[in-house]
Amino acid sequence: MPAMQTIDFYFDFASPYGYFMSEKIDALAAQHGQTVRWRPILLFAALRSLGLPPPFEHPVKREYITADFARSARFLGVDYHLPPAFPALTQHAARAFYLLSEQAPAVAVPFAQAVLRGYFQQGRDISDADTIADMVCRQTSLLGATETVRTQLKSDAAKDMLHDAIIAAVGHKVFGSPFVVVDGESFFGVDRLPQIAAKLSAAA
Amino acid sequence: MPAMQTIDFYFDFASPYGYFMSEKIDALAAQHGQTVRWRPILLFAALRSLGLPPPFEHPVKREYITADFARSARFLGVDYHLPPAFPALTQHAARAFYLLSEQAPAVAVPFAQAVLRGYFQQGRDISDADTIADMVCRQTSLLGATETVRTQLKSDAAKDMLHDAIIAAVGHKVFGSPFVVVDGESFFGVDRLPQIAAKLSAAA
Repeated sequence: MPAMQTIDFYFDFASPYGYFMSEKIDALAAQHGQTVRWRPILLFAALRSLGLPPPFEHPVKREYITADFARSARFLGVDYHLPPAFPALTQHAARAFYLLSEQAPAVAVPFAQAVLRGYFQQGRDISDADTIADMVCRQTSLLGATETVRTQLKSDAAKDMLHDAIIAAVGHKVFGSPFVVVDGESFFGVDRLPQIAAKLSAAA
Repeated sequence: MPAMQTIDFYFDFASPYGYFMSEKIDALAAQHGQTVRWRPILLFAALRSLGLPPPFEHPVKREYITADFARSARFLGVDYHLPPAFPALTQHAARAFYLLSEQAPAVAVPFAQAVLRGYFQQGRDISDADTIADMVCRQTSLLGATETVRTQLKSDAAKDMLHDAIIAAVGHKVFGSPFVVVDGESFFGVDRLPQIAAKLSAAA
């Protein structure tokens, strides 16, 4: 058995590069006998706390990355379409993730994958609380029916869990999505996959 | 013979990621029967023209990339040490490159490589006009002795050639270093090497 490493995967549900990483990081970690802790955050909130501007505000950069999203998806072999509503508000999805992590942990990551694929493959409106509550109920009945889930998404408990995750992200100086922290070493961007693989190999 | 592709390699002499690309791009292009046109620019001037802020101003990002420079150099197998004077002023190096391109084109790229390696391997002070004039003279005597070269570095002709290159870069929306444009398609960052390789393969 390899020594266990801490692999924290920070991402925002509205981040295409975060979605690409979500399709790769678990399999990469598994190849090295490791597991990944998924940590959805609100990137804009983390950036604000760090005193950084929102990403890709300038049209020149936005034009480049819009093309790069599609090119990188092809390069990585990930199914991707720029969603009609982009970017999305992601607090409902992120709060739902942390509710599930507490109440039905086995389905938290499958739920996150369903949200990301729903958004980036099928263009679903993940800003919408009803859509998110519906997606939760498709994973588990442990949180109750759609109405109950929707109420929980607005609870202080759900807000606090997401707030704590963002505070932790700011503490680790997470300034982008995806942002992977392996045993304290930070890797920003899906482009760092080969270097994460090298680190996991070196530690094996 | 493969069809010729236009490969423009924009970089700033003070950019570590630009230096890493400079150690890779010619060999990659050669594998596909292509040649690269090197285009040193002053990145700060290009960013100003595009209305973008200088890169890495924020301490959180600066701390990350300083570590990432060293990690990426190891990953790419490039000899690299953060120069004692970082960043450098690069107008003398860039003007010298364009003077050589006109008067002794065969040594323009070898000169650029000597500057980049002198800076990032040996920590030489490439901001200094005398150092740059000296490096020119080690490549060729076609521009005259050190004194003459130093005078030429301050000539309107040299300034104009660099200015024109920066205007062209701004026209191609070059917002970082390295920035490679292959037949009109833009690739930002040394991380895009695998995708540049894929494009060159697809076109072969």
